[in-house]
Amino acid sequence: MPSRILLVNGPNLNTLGSREPEIYGHETLEHIETQCKEAATSLGLALDCFQSNHEGEMVTKIQQAAKDHQGLIVNAGAYTHTSIAIMDALLTLKIPVIEVHMSNIFRRESFRHESYVSKAAKGIICGFGSHSYRLALQAMADLLKIKK
Amino acid sequence: MPSRILLVNGPNLNTLGSREPEIYGHETLEHIETQCKEAATSLGLALDCFQSNHEGEMVTKIQQAAKDHQGLIVNAGAYTHTSIAIMDALLTLKIPVIEVHMSNIFRRESFRHESYVSKAAKGIICGFGSHSYRLALQAMADLLKIKK
Amino acid sequence: MPSRILLVNGPNLNTLGSREPEIYGHETLEHIETQCKEAATSLGLALDCFQSNHEGEMVTKIQQAAKDHQGLIVNAGAYTHTSIAIMDALLTLKIPVIEVHMSNIFRRESFRHESYVSKAAKGIICGFGSHSYRLALQAMADLLKIKK
Amino acid sequence: MPSRILLVNGPNLNTLGSREPEIYGHETLEHIETQCKEAATSLGLALDCFQSNHEGEMVTKIQQAAKDHQGLIVNAGAYTHTSIAIMDALLTLKIPVIEVHMSNIFRRESFRHESYVSKAAKGIICGFGSHSYRLALQAMADLLKIKK
Amino acid sequence: MPSRILLVNGPNLNTLGSREPEIYGHETLEHIETQCKEAATSLGLALDCFQSNHEGEMVTKIQQAAKDHQGLIVNAGAYTHTSIAIMDALLTLKIPVIEVHMSNIFRRESFRHESYVSKAAKGIICGFGSHSYRLALQAMADLLKIKK
Amino acid sequence: MPSRILLVNGPNLNTLGSREPEIYGHETLEHIETQCKEAATSLGLALDCFQSNHEGEMVTKIQQAAKDHQGLIVNAGAYTHTSIAIMDALLTLKIPVIEVHMSNIFRRESFRHESYVSKAAKGIICGFGSHSYRLALQAMADLLKIKK
Amino acid sequence: MPSRILLVNGPNLNTLGSREPEIYGHETLEHIETQCKEAATSLGLALDCFQSNHEGEMVTKIQQAAKDHQGLIVNAGAYTHTSIAIMDALLTLKIPVIEVHMSNIFRRESFRHESYVSKAAKGIICGFGSHSYRLALQAMADLLKIKK
Amino acid sequence: MPSRILLVNGPNLNTLGSREPEIYGHETLEHIETQCKEAATSLGLALDCFQSNHEGEMVTKIQQAAKDHQGLIVNAGAYTHTSIAIMDALLTLKIPVIEVHMSNIFRRESFRHESYVSKAAKGIICGFGSHSYRLALQAMADLLKIKK
Amino acid sequence: MPSRILLVNGPNLNTLGSREPEIYGHETLEHIETQCKEAATSLGLALDCFQSNHEGEMVTKIQQAAKDHQGLIVNAGAYTHTSIAIMDALLTLKIPVIEVHMSNIFRRESFRHESYVSKAAKGIICGFGSHSYRLALQAMADLLKIKK
Amino acid sequence: MPSRILLVNGPNLNTLGSREPEIYGHETLEHIETQCKEAATSLGLALDCFQSNHEGEMVTKIQQAAKDHQGLIVNAGAYTHTSIAIMDALLTLKIPVIEVHMSNIFRRESFRHESYVSKAAKGIICGFGSHSYRLALQAMADLLKIKK
Amino acid sequence: MPSRILLVNGPNLNTLGSREPEIYGHETLEHIETQCKEAATSLGLALDCFQSNHEGEMVTKIQQAAKDHQGLIVNAGAYTHTSIAIMDALLTLKIPVIEVHMSNIFRRESFRHESYVSKAAKGIICGFGSHSYRLALQAMADLLKIKK
Amino acid sequence: MPSRILLVNGPNLNTLGSREPEIYGHETLEHIETQCKEAATSLGLALDCFQSNHEGEMVTKIQQAAKDHQGLIVNAGAYTHTSIAIMDALLTLKIPVIEVHMSNIFRRESFRHESYVSKAAKGIICGFGSHSYRLALQAMADLLKIKK
Repeated sequence: MPSRILLVNGPNLNTLGSREPEIYGHETLEHIETQCKEAATSLGLALDCFQSNHEGEMVTKIQQAAKDHQGLIVNAGAYTHTSIAIMDALLTLKIPVIEVHMSNIFRRESFRHESYVSKAAKGIICGFGSHSYRLALQAMADLLKIKK
Repeated sequence: MPSRILLVNGPNLNTLGSREPEIYGHETLEHIETQCKEAATSLGLALDCFQSNHEGEMVTKIQQAAKDHQGLIVNAGAYTHTSIAIMDALLTLKIPVIEVHMSNIFRRESFRHESYVSKAAKGIICGFGSHSYRLALQAMADLLKIKK
Repeated sequence: MPSRILLVNGPNLNTLGSREPEIYGHETLEHIETQCKEAATSLGLALDCFQSNHEGEMVTKIQQAAKDHQGLIVNAGAYTHTSIAIMDALLTLKIPVIEVHMSNIFRRESFRHESYVSKAAKGIICGFGSHSYRLALQAMADLLKIKK
Repeated sequence: MPSRILLVNGPNLNTLGSREPEIYGHETLEHIETQCKEAATSLGLALDCFQSNHEGEMVTKIQQAAKDHQGLIVNAGAYTHTSIAIMDALLTLKIPVIEVHMSNIFRRESFRHESYVSKAAKGIICGFGSHSYRLALQAMADLLKIKK
Repeated sequence: MPSRILLVNGPNLNTLGSREPEIYGHETLEHIETQCKEAATSLGLALDCFQSNHEGEMVTKIQQAAKDHQGLIVNAGAYTHTSIAIMDALLTLKIPVIEVHMSNIFRRESFRHESYVSKAAKGIICGFGSHSYRLALQAMADLLKIKK
Repeated sequence: MPSRILLVNGPNLNTLGSREPEIYGHETLEHIETQCKEAATSLGLALDCFQSNHEGEMVTKIQQAAKDHQGLIVNAGAYTHTSIAIMDALLTLKIPVIEVHMSNIFRRESFRHESYVSKAAKGIICGFGSHSYRLALQAMADLLKIKK
Repeated sequence: MPSRILLVNGPNLNTLGSREPEIYGHETLEHIETQCKEAATSLGLALDCFQSNHEGEMVTKIQQAAKDHQGLIVNAGAYTHTSIAIMDALLTLKIPVIEVHMSNIFRRESFRHESYVSKAAKGIICGFGSHSYRLALQAMADLLKIKK
Repeated sequence: MPSRILLVNGPNLNTLGSREPEIYGHETLEHIETQCKEAATSLGLALDCFQSNHEGEMVTKIQQAAKDHQGLIVNAGAYTHTSIAIMDALLTLKIPVIEVHMSNIFRRESFRHESYVSKAAKGIICGFGSHSYRLALQAMADLLKIKK
Repeated sequence: MPSRILLVNGPNLNTLGSREPEIYGHETLEHIETQCKEAATSLGLALDCFQSNHEGEMVTKIQQAAKDHQGLIVNAGAYTHTSIAIMDALLTLKIPVIEVHMSNIFRRESFRHESYVSKAAKGIICGFGSHSYRLALQAMADLLKIKK
Repeated sequence: MPSRILLVNGPNLNTLGSREPEIYGHETLEHIETQCKEAATSLGLALDCFQSNHEGEMVTKIQQAAKDHQGLIVNAGAYTHTSIAIMDALLTLKIPVIEVHMSNIFRRESFRHESYVSKAAKGIICGFGSHSYRLALQAMADLLKIKK
Repeated sequence: MPSRILLVNGPNLNTLGSREPEIYGHETLEHIETQCKEAATSLGLALDCFQSNHEGEMVTKIQQAAKDHQGLIVNAGAYTHTSIAIMDALLTLKIPVIEVHMSNIFRRESFRHESYVSKAAKGIICGFGSHSYRLALQAMADLLKIKK
Repeated sequence: MPSRILLVNGPNLNTLGSREPEIYGHETLEHIETQCKEAATSLGLALDCFQSNHEGEMVTKIQQAAKDHQGLIVNAGAYTHTSIAIMDALLTLKIPVIEVHMSNIFRRESFRHESYVSKAAKGIICGFGSHSYRLALQAMADLLKIKK
């Protein structure tokens, strides 16, 4: 049976395609999720996708991953920089966590340079637009192979 | 047809009238919203009002303003100082945004001096109690006139 | 009639028992709440319990305590360090507020040393595991006795 | 008899119309003052206007407002961020003070985010170009009505 | 045989009752110590009390607790915020240490927010006036029960 | 022939008597200057007095003291904390400089704790209301006696 | 009966005369105390002198001044910059406190610019060598006259 | 003809395999380079490898990439955090740059959280051990495909 | 017709020759201005000179240069480090601005390391005593030649 | 006659052997002092030893060294990082001062990285356990030889 | 015999002409060096030129200037902001040092505002493109004339 | 066979004897190395000496010590304060590392107070001129004896 991976996207990522396209590109989140599911399948993984603008919903979803999933990929959006609660939820997980950003957050405003998610993640991939997600899936497949 | 304006109030503004009245006065939010709607009408504007204690609900509502409204007035309450997510949602809007505060936040605790909303707002009005809202409506009417 | 006390627990405290047990112990939140209710009864208090991962829900619940309860005990979890909104909600209450933490937050990461809740609390109890809650109930009983 | 209001403009505002028009627009100060006087009259106020590039002259003029005027509107320009002397002069006034800026100072260089004037002002209006002045007059009229 | 607990009070706590009573109340230290001894007895503990204005005497006394006592409760007063030496002495102890403050130090001047004692304490109780001491005794009784 | 001393007062000190009397008392500057001249005479000194709201005028006046006076007493008001130019002017003098403040500036806002004048002054006297000036005259008399 | 004043000198002031004479001059503390007593007598005051290298002894002595003295003059030496305990002791006094330093501490190392004593003192005199003490006596005489 | 990619490794990466294996694993750099070359071939890329402990040599090598290579992958080791010179060299390149780290630098000492390389890189991959390099090759292949 | 250049000198530069000659040398400002005029002539430039101790006068003079001069050389003295108003005036100019200092300000007190003028200047020359002015004239001649 | 050296040990060093032995080793202070005396003798020096937990006693002892000793070795323990008073006492000495620490204080908590003693010491030796003392004696012998 | 001057250029200046020409212009370093040599000749100076991307080579070359040259002009490029080693090498020289930058480093990123070279240089010239070098030669000629 | 020790000296230490002799003395590095070799022999050690101005060469040399030497003594000169790369190289060694400085770096400029080398060293010796090296050899001999 394939490993189940959860992809969690945070606030404003539901507006991808219309939000500041010079930074985030023209693909919608729906399109990216579809592409990721295909990529996951070809890597022998099963992918569940979740998006929320609510910090609390993200915390709850991440907690549930503990029993349903073998890996978690997260782009926490703006909560990356402000949410200790999401970091705490990630820290309770024993499955590997990969942090993803579409833009290179280190070339943007200084308040986007600090990431609470990084303190709970195994690895980070950022700056490759929607490719970042697929690279994360590839990395997750590698990580799970090692564990086996 | 009149321009539709959205007024978004953030956490704890639903308790106006009972919360620290020496700072915020004795008017309830309901009363202020009613007065603002009347003022809007007399300025040739239509006003929709929304309040939430949830950062995520505010983000979602602000996103929706992109298609339903021609202007947005926001008093983000405590989230003014902590929410990059709300700032990001405001930055995706192409309609004018006005930041409002009833109190002069610069004469209060230092953690209320920094505003993420200001980085996404056209202009700021603060310190005039419930008048701040009506001045913002006036300012919005002026801004929309210029655009036409 | 006994004084009604509200116990508010914040994000990730619903996972007590499984989350980093070397810091938080093996008791579940349910177990702790049951024990606290018994302790409250023996102190002549009635205890209501509430947990949420949502900052906004916590704000709303705290606002409601103004009319239903005579005291509030709060472990805001990660929101302790980031939520001005919860602090604002607590500041509008006229009933005594006690801040509780199971771990000694001052021996953990530096971003856990600053507490917005402390600015709105009468007193703080931290570091005694689940005992912290029962000490808070004892302290609340003492505070309410003084007021009478 | 109408309330007399003093409008004080600080350094470099005398060059409005030619100075960085992409920030400050093309209207001259003279033009704005004329428009403000008309707006004042229609609000039942009498407006006196003063501009200086000298911190000391501004201090002296503000001191004199104590006996000649019922309200003061001030755009201290660059002295906003550096002059404790102007703040001190404003603090001795017992009449309401409104701070005005044409640009949104919080979206400019970080040394323009701190304002000494704010510590002495009742309210602040910024970001609306020359409209900021007229909104301030409207706000002043409201404030004086409340006092009566 | 009952566990022996040492209560160490630091500088200026000998003037309790006369010092800033709006912060510290009207009880003298002698009165508080008497009450604590009674409370200790009823918890099955024996309490020794010590007060000094000298950092060095406090260090020496704390060192001696290693062989004579099973628990230590300390209100280091102003030395809380400045004494690494007291922290070092506490760190050498293998018995549980509880930090106590009568006032909520986090609502006072910012130089009282940092505590060296916290880095060596099991738990902290502050803000409950002289009740803080009795809550600490209760907490100590709980801690010692767990150890047995 | 008596030594000539120059007393320089800075911005807003011309409004003494009306400005925040709970901090600065009810005496006018004129009254204080008269009293200082009498005190100077009784100490065998001749006193010239100067006040300005202009940083530049103060700089020029201080420069001139180099040839006309044997000592300088300065209360630079708000410029104390912002004027490197006044400090530079004082540093070029070879006569003794005494810094005076009526209030204890270290118990006021933090931006009043830093003084550029202190870096150029022999000694500082602050917190004694209008007595500060007379103590400065006494101190100046002592300093000049030593030099002879 | 003359008012009794207590003069408290802190660490290393017992070595005056030999310690860094280019900063502190060649007079011994004994000599200064004798001169101060004479000056006090001529001002109608009685002076008690105390020196200690111990922070704790200084705290205790300051506490005792509450019942024996009508005024306190303190040069806390190095403890000026580090002792919250001495500040706390001074804050409990209801008699006037004057802070004295022989050198201008603001022209020395930056860690000597911050003074805890200043937060508890009525006024400060520094930079006049041993004259600082006599100016403080003069200032104290003035303060006590006002109170009568 | 395949695109030529340059892989630049910085100081101490030549000791991989023996250096802190709990952080960096047991593979030698030689082994990693061989694996990367194979991976590159399978992606249709040609890979050149370079390692140096010298900041200056790295600067020179990066400059040369401008004419010989179509993409650059860099793990600047410790120079990541200190070398503006390497950043400057990268900024002059017009080919895509990918930053790689084997460890998650954001979970290590705070002086490893700041990266000058990030300011010049298109994207960042860190935390996946030697997999980081291969993910970077995959990302580079994606980037070059887009450009075509 | 030769290009007209304005040389603006700020506070305390009128005392050159007597002020701290070990830093600034023994030449008077008059002497330097005369020499600069001769140097200007030999470079085919016409030089106007202006000095003021008043920030406001400097602002006004700089504004006027917009219509009368083709280049501006400024040594703002102490205002270099404190005047946003002068920076704003310089920013409105479209003619080249060169910043000059006689001393190397980066080897003096740290508050002289920050320059607002630098943010508005094309280039900076400092540390060469009165030569700095003549080098600036040379540099201005070069700049104007490029523009032609 | 041999040179007399004073060895001063500060707070908590009297508990050596029992205090955190993984940092400080198992030797008692008594044992170290005995070994140091022997080492001193073999170097032609006479060693006096002193330990105190009191900052004031250390200040007094250091002052006395001025007349009785030719060199001073000091391990000020926790006072290293907080005592300006001890630094001041050391600065008045004209004999060489050597600072000693058993542990490498720069690899411990950041508040142990700053040393006031270093500002008054000729040299520093730290990190070699009890060997640090004997190396200091060796260094002292070298220093005294140079002076002769 | 003409004075020999050494011109030292640091990292990435070898790519002048191709590197960010909007900042650095289109001239190559070779071209600039040739022009500088001609300018030197016309000033009666002999110029040697050196460029390196290696901090260590720059240190060594600067050391050698002590015996071969009478003046040194240095553009340390990125090492300006990070190299204490180059500063130390410059500080050992007894010949005059002039710091040069082509761009105005104070209008670029904030990490380019701090210069270690400035602490060792006589004077600084920046912002004039390749003219900066020739102005430095002119300044050097002036400095050497004074010394003679 | 004697233990082999490597002595690594960093930038500018090759100019010892001529560089700022008031800080570093008149001995050349060659002379010091010769003396150290003799001292090593008498301690039963064999000493290899290395000096470089290149950070990269120092990194490489330190790496090689892992297989050739039993101990390392390092004076990294200016790289002490800037080189994470050297720290990383030292951290990979399993042999003891001793940090040496000739001057007391804590009494010099503040940027020399921070040492990366200290984070990787067993112990530190500084301030004893060339004696520092010989004390380090003594300390190394002691450390190696313990290990045996």
